[in-house]
Amino acid sequence: MGFITDDFLLTTDAARSLYHSCADGLPIIDYHCHIDAAEIRGNRSYKNLTELWLRGDHYKWRAMRANGVCESLCTGDGSDYDKFLAFASTMRYAIGNPLYHWSHLELKRYFGIDEVLSEQSAQGIWKRVNAILAGGLRCRDFIKLSNVEVICTTDDPADSLEHHLALRDENLSFRVLPTWRPDKIRHLNDPAYPEYVSRLAASAGSRIQSLDELKTVLVSRLDYFEAAGCRLSDHSFEYMPLRDSTADPAGVFAAALSGKPVSLQEESAFTFHIMEFLGAEYARRGWTMQLHMGALRSNNTRMLRAVGADTGFDSINDFALAERLAEFMDSLDSKELLPQTILYHVNPSFNYVLGSMIGNFQGESPGKIQFGSAWWFCDHFDGMRRQLTDLAALGLLGRFVGMLTDSRSFLSYTRHEYFRRILCGLLGEWVTAGHLPNDMDTLGETVSDICYHNAKAYFKL
Amino acid sequence: MGFITDDFLLTTDAARSLYHSCADGLPIIDYHCHIDAAEIRGNRSYKNLTELWLRGDHYKWRAMRANGVCESLCTGDGSDYDKFLAFASTMRYAIGNPLYHWSHLELKRYFGIDEVLSEQSAQGIWKRVNAILAGGLRCRDFIKLSNVEVICTTDDPADSLEHHLALRDENLSFRVLPTWRPDKIRHLNDPAYPEYVSRLAASAGSRIQSLDELKTVLVSRLDYFEAAGCRLSDHSFEYMPLRDSTADPAGVFAAALSGKPVSLQEESAFTFHIMEFLGAEYARRGWTMQLHMGALRSNNTRMLRAVGADTGFDSINDFALAERLAEFMDSLDSKELLPQTILYHVNPSFNYVLGSMIGNFQGESPGKIQFGSAWWFCDHFDGMRRQLTDLAALGLLGRFVGMLTDSRSFLSYTRHEYFRRILCGLLGEWVTAGHLPNDMDTLGETVSDICYHNAKAYFKL
Amino acid sequence: MGFITDDFLLTTDAARSLYHSCADGLPIIDYHCHIDAAEIRGNRSYKNLTELWLRGDHYKWRAMRANGVCESLCTGDGSDYDKFLAFASTMRYAIGNPLYHWSHLELKRYFGIDEVLSEQSAQGIWKRVNAILAGGLRCRDFIKLSNVEVICTTDDPADSLEHHLALRDENLSFRVLPTWRPDKIRHLNDPAYPEYVSRLAASAGSRIQSLDELKTVLVSRLDYFEAAGCRLSDHSFEYMPLRDSTADPAGVFAAALSGKPVSLQEESAFTFHIMEFLGAEYARRGWTMQLHMGALRSNNTRMLRAVGADTGFDSINDFALAERLAEFMDSLDSKELLPQTILYHVNPSFNYVLGSMIGNFQGESPGKIQFGSAWWFCDHFDGMRRQLTDLAALGLLGRFVGMLTDSRSFLSYTRHEYFRRILCGLLGEWVTAGHLPNDMDTLGETVSDICYHNAKAYFKL
Repeated sequence: MGFITDDFLLTTDAARSLYHSCADGLPIIDYHCHIDAAEIRGNRSYKNLTELWLRGDHYKWRAMRANGVCESLCTGDGSDYDKFLAFASTMRYAIGNPLYHWSHLELKRYFGIDEVLSEQSAQGIWKRVNAILAGGLRCRDFIKLSNVEVICTTDDPADSLEHHLALRDENLSFRVLPTWRPDKIRHLNDPAYPEYVSRLAASAGSRIQSLDELKTVLVSRLDYFEAAGCRLSDHSFEYMPLRDSTADPAGVFAAALSGKPVSLQEESAFTFHIMEFLGAEYARRGWTMQLHMGALRSNNTRMLRAVGADTGFDSINDFALAERLAEFMDSLDSKELLPQTILYHVNPSFNYVLGSMIGNFQGESPGKIQFGSAWWFCDHFDGMRRQLTDLAALGLLGRFVGMLTDSRSFLSYTRHEYFRRILCGLLGEWVTAGHLPNDMDTLGETVSDICYHNAKAYFKL
Repeated sequence: MGFITDDFLLTTDAARSLYHSCADGLPIIDYHCHIDAAEIRGNRSYKNLTELWLRGDHYKWRAMRANGVCESLCTGDGSDYDKFLAFASTMRYAIGNPLYHWSHLELKRYFGIDEVLSEQSAQGIWKRVNAILAGGLRCRDFIKLSNVEVICTTDDPADSLEHHLALRDENLSFRVLPTWRPDKIRHLNDPAYPEYVSRLAASAGSRIQSLDELKTVLVSRLDYFEAAGCRLSDHSFEYMPLRDSTADPAGVFAAALSGKPVSLQEESAFTFHIMEFLGAEYARRGWTMQLHMGALRSNNTRMLRAVGADTGFDSINDFALAERLAEFMDSLDSKELLPQTILYHVNPSFNYVLGSMIGNFQGESPGKIQFGSAWWFCDHFDGMRRQLTDLAALGLLGRFVGMLTDSRSFLSYTRHEYFRRILCGLLGEWVTAGHLPNDMDTLGETVSDICYHNAKAYFKL
Repeated sequence: MGFITDDFLLTTDAARSLYHSCADGLPIIDYHCHIDAAEIRGNRSYKNLTELWLRGDHYKWRAMRANGVCESLCTGDGSDYDKFLAFASTMRYAIGNPLYHWSHLELKRYFGIDEVLSEQSAQGIWKRVNAILAGGLRCRDFIKLSNVEVICTTDDPADSLEHHLALRDENLSFRVLPTWRPDKIRHLNDPAYPEYVSRLAASAGSRIQSLDELKTVLVSRLDYFEAAGCRLSDHSFEYMPLRDSTADPAGVFAAALSGKPVSLQEESAFTFHIMEFLGAEYARRGWTMQLHMGALRSNNTRMLRAVGADTGFDSINDFALAERLAEFMDSLDSKELLPQTILYHVNPSFNYVLGSMIGNFQGESPGKIQFGSAWWFCDHFDGMRRQLTDLAALGLLGRFVGMLTDSRSFLSYTRHEYFRRILCGLLGEWVTAGHLPNDMDTLGETVSDICYHNAKAYFKL
C-alpha cells in the first residue's frame, strides 16, 4: 500500500473530521489555470503517460535537469519511455518537493496506483497507466472525475475565444471561462509588438494608431470577454511599475508602435498608465484583478534560444515593491475604481508585505482584496501552510477564496485535494493545541467556505 | 467553558511548570505603549464595551473592513451596539489572527467571560460587560488588576507632561513615565512644520531660528523629560536616513523653517544629523533609544482624507536598510556615544538583519543592544515565536528585555500574559524535544528575567 | 547525565534508525573550512581550554560581548581562566543559540564531559579538559577521532601552499587540500592593493603590470593550486557585481595598480569581468565555484581599529541580488563555461532566491548547481532545517552535497554530527507524519548520500 492513504497529511482527529466531513466532496472552482480550452473542446486523449505528464511540465523538467538528465529526455527528442524512466528515476531524490506528493496523488486518484514511483516501479506503472489511457480516459474525464465546476483559463485579449464559446453551447457539467491576460500590451520593446497591436486591432475589427484607439479596442475586447463569461483578469509583473506624472504614455505608445526603442522608465510609466485604465474597467465590470509578482523569467539565454520561454528557466526576484504597489492600488482606490484584487508573490519573503497591503484597501465587500494562494515556487506543503498562517495572522483567513491549480495539466486538480488536506491539517493542529475552540460546526463552515463557497461568491459564479 | 483555560498555549509539562511557577504573577513593566496619561489621571470610565474596545483600535477596524463592514460601523457614526455586533460577527473569520486570542483573553481576564465571541453570543456578552463597566470598573482598575508596575507612554518633546507630573504626585501603586518621541522634528515638508517648531520653542520658553537654537531647545526639553522620569526615546523610520558628509543640515533646517520644500535627500541627511545629535544625548543620560523601522504609512489617500492617520491603513515596507542602519549606529559608537538601543522591524523578513546587527555593537553591559519584541503586524503567536527563536539563534535570549503592549488600550496588558505563555511554551518544547537540559531552576530564572527583571534592570526602573 | 544523549535531536523511531544505521560512522568530507594547514603540519597542541576554544572564535566573543563581558576577556589580555569563566557564565543566557549545542557536543565528544557548562561547573570542566590536553591530545587527534577523510582549507592565490605539500608527503589517514580564495584581487581600493599584486606576481615568479599579465599569473597560480590538489574556489560578495559592457577593466586595474581611487561602479564592473574570467577557468578544470553572499562586514569602526577584522563585528546585508546573480551565471553558462557552483547566502530571507536560482542552470550532471548548506548566522538547528526544507521544496534534496564546518577550530567536526542529526530528525518527522513512504532502505541511502557520498562524487575526491 502506498503512502497516499485516506488520511494523508491529516495527523489529528480534528483534521480528519474536517477533511472527511467538509472538504472532501466539494466541487472545484479552478479560478486560475493555463489549460488550453481547445483541448477540452476536442476532448484530448493521450497515447501514454509521458504525453500526459511530461509534455509541457517545466516543474518536472527542472527536477530532471537537477538530476543531471540530458535535455533530449526533457524537452528533446528522446523516446517517450526513456523520458518517463528518467523522471521516475529522479523521484527518489525529490523527497520534500511538491512533485513527490503531486505525482503520487495523481497516480493514485486517476489510475489507482499505490506503488511509489521509482526506477524499479517505472515499467509496471508505465504499462498500467497506458492501458487505462488506451481504454479511453480523456481530458474531460479527468475534469469530471475531479468534480470540477468552473475552469478559468488564461487568454490574450486578441484571442477569438472560439473554443470557450463552443464549449458554452455544449451544456457541460462544468463551465470553461476565459480570463483576460493583457501582458503583451506592456511589452513595448518586443520586436513583435507592432504586429501584436495589429492583431489586437483586427480582433476588434478596428485599427490602433494611437493610445486612445488602443483604449477603445481594449474596451471592445473587454466587452467581448465579458460576454464570453470572463470574471477575472491576470497580470504578471517582474517589477512593479512606477507612477510618473511627467510621463507621456501616448508618446511612448506611438514610439513603440513605430518600432522605436523605449526606455525601462518609459515602459514603467506606460504600464502604470495602462494598468490604471484597465483596473478601472475591471472595477466597472465587477471583475477581479490578479497581480502575479516577483518572477524573474528566462534566466538562461542559451536554453531560451534552444527551447524557448516557459520551459523551466525562471526563478524568483527580490525587488522592493511595497511602496509602488501601494501607490498603484491607491491610485485606483482614490477614484473609487479599485476592483476586487488578488495579490500573489512568488517569494515568500514578501508574504508580510502582501498580507498587510491587502488591509489598506478593504471595506466594500467581504475579503475584497485578497492575499492569493501560495504561487509557483511556493505551491507546496510548506509554502501553503505559510501562506495560510501569514494570511490568518494579518487578515481574515475565513474570507480566503482558496486554491487554484495555475496548471497546464488536467491531472492537477489533485492540488485542490492537497490544499484541502493542508488546510484541514493546519486547523486541526490549532484545535488540538488549544489555539481554537473545539467547535467543529463553525470550523467546518470555514473549511467549506475556503474550499468552495468563498470563491463562488467572490467571483460571482 | 471557553478555550482560554489555565493552560492555554502550554502544551508540555515543562511549559506549564515554567508558566505557573515563574511567569504568572510577575509584575508588568510596559516600557512602550500609546496610552494617554490624561486618561489615567482622570481615571477614565467607559459607558460600554464599544467605547472600551472599538474606539481607537485600528487592528479591529482593519479586520472589520476586511469582513466588508462599512466605515460607519468602524470609525463612523453607527450605534455603539451595531459596531460591537459587527466586530463580534467578524470574529469567526479571524481565526489565526491575534485579535482572536487577544479578544478572548481580555473578555476572560477582565470580565470572566468564557463564551466564544460571535454574532450569536454578542448580545449576552454586551450586557454582561456593560453591567460590570457600569459597576465602576475604570481604567486604573485594569492597570491594578493587571499587576502593572511601570507604564511608559509616548510623548512629543513639546508636551507639557502635566498629567505625568500630576500622577507622580499621587503616589500610585504604579508609575507612569513619559517617553521622548521627537518624530515631528524630522518631518520637514509637513505644512505644519514651522508651527510645530514654534510650539516646541514655546514649550522651552525659548525661540528657534537656527539649527543651533533647535538643539539648545531639544537639550532643554530632554532635561525636562528626564526630570519627569523619562528613560526611553522612540523613533519611527519608514526608511533609514543616509549619512551625507556634504550635507548642510543647518541650511536645510532654515529652509524648512521658512516653509520651503526640502528634497527627500536633504531630509534624509538632516535626519541622520539630528539623530546623531539626539543619540549622543540619550547616551549621556543613560536612556534607551528605540528605533521602529519598516512601516509604510497612510497608504489609502481617500481614507486618510476621510478619517485621518493611524486609522488602519498602514502596512509593511521592504526597503534594504542593513547598511544604513549599521552606518548610523557606527557613527555614534565611534564617538563612544551609542546609547542602549532597541531595534524593531515590522517585517519579519528583516529578523536576521536586526538579530545579527545588534551583535556589532555590544559590550558595555548585558544586552546593551536589543532586537525588540515582535512589533505590530508581527505581534502574534507566530511572530513572537519567530522573534524569540531568531533572537536566540543570533544572540542571547536570556538577556532579552521582553514584552511591551504598544497599545492605546488599558485591556492590552493581557498581551504580556500572551507573550509569557508563548515564551514558556517555546522553552517547554525545547526541553521536551531534548534541545535543552531539563533544569527547571535555571530556566525558571531565565523566564522571570525575560518577563520582568531584565527590563527593570535595563531601563533602570 | 547531560542532555547530549545518543538520541540527541532524534525524536522519532525513523530518525533514530536513520541516524544510527546510516549517518553515524560515515567519514567526514569537510569541503570548506578556515583551518590553518600549518597547525596540522605542526600537530598543534593546546595548553588549556581557552587556547583551544576561545582564541580566534568570533562566535563566542559576540555572545560574551552581548553578555556585557569586557573586551579584555574576549580578545584582550585577561587571564585564560578568567576568559573561560566569562564564557562559561554566558552559556546559560545562550539557550537556543548554536553555541549552546556546539559547546556541549564538543565537551562530550572530545572530553567525555556530561555536565552542563555554567559559572558553577566551569572550574571542574577547566581542570578535566586541561588534564586531557596535557595528556597529549593534539590537533591531528581531533581530526582522527572525528573520522575526517578530507579537509579543504581556504587559501590566497599568493600562498605557497608549503604546508599542504608537506602534509601530502606524510601519507596521513586524511587529506588536506587547498581552496582558491582570490578575494583580495577585487579589493581595488585597499591601500595594500599594489603590494598584494606584487606579492601575487612574485608567487608565480613573474610580474604584473597589466590586466593581461594579471590573468597570466592567475592561470599559473590556478595550475599550481590544481597540482596541490585544489578542487574548489571560494568568493565572498557583500553585493553582487553588475555587468557593464561599457566598462574598461584593464584601465580600472591599471588605475588601482598605481594606487588611484576606483569608484564603486568601476570596482563592480572589474569584479564582474574578473569573475567571468575565473569562472571559465574553474569550469575548464572541473573545479567547484563557491559564492558566499550577503555578509556586511566590519560594521564597528572603533573595534576594527582596536582588534582588527573578522573579530565578530560582521552581520547580514539585505541588498537585492537575484537579477545580478542570474546575469553573472548566465554570462558563463552562455559560453558553456559555468562551473559547478554552490550558492550560499547568510540571510535566510534569500533562501527562495537561491533555491530557485540553481534550477536555472542545471543539466550536465546531478546537482551541478547547489544551494549551499546553512551558512554562518544560519548555521544552527533552525537555519539548517530551513535550508533543508527550502532546498527540498525547490530542488532535489537527494543530490545535496551536505555539510561543511566553515570553522577555524579542530573541534568543529561535531557540526557534521549536528547536521546529520538534524537531517535524520527532519526525514524522520516526514516519515512519521506520513509525508514520505516508510521505506528505510531508500531513505538510508539518501542520508548517506547527503552526509558523504554526494560530496565525494561532486568534488571528485
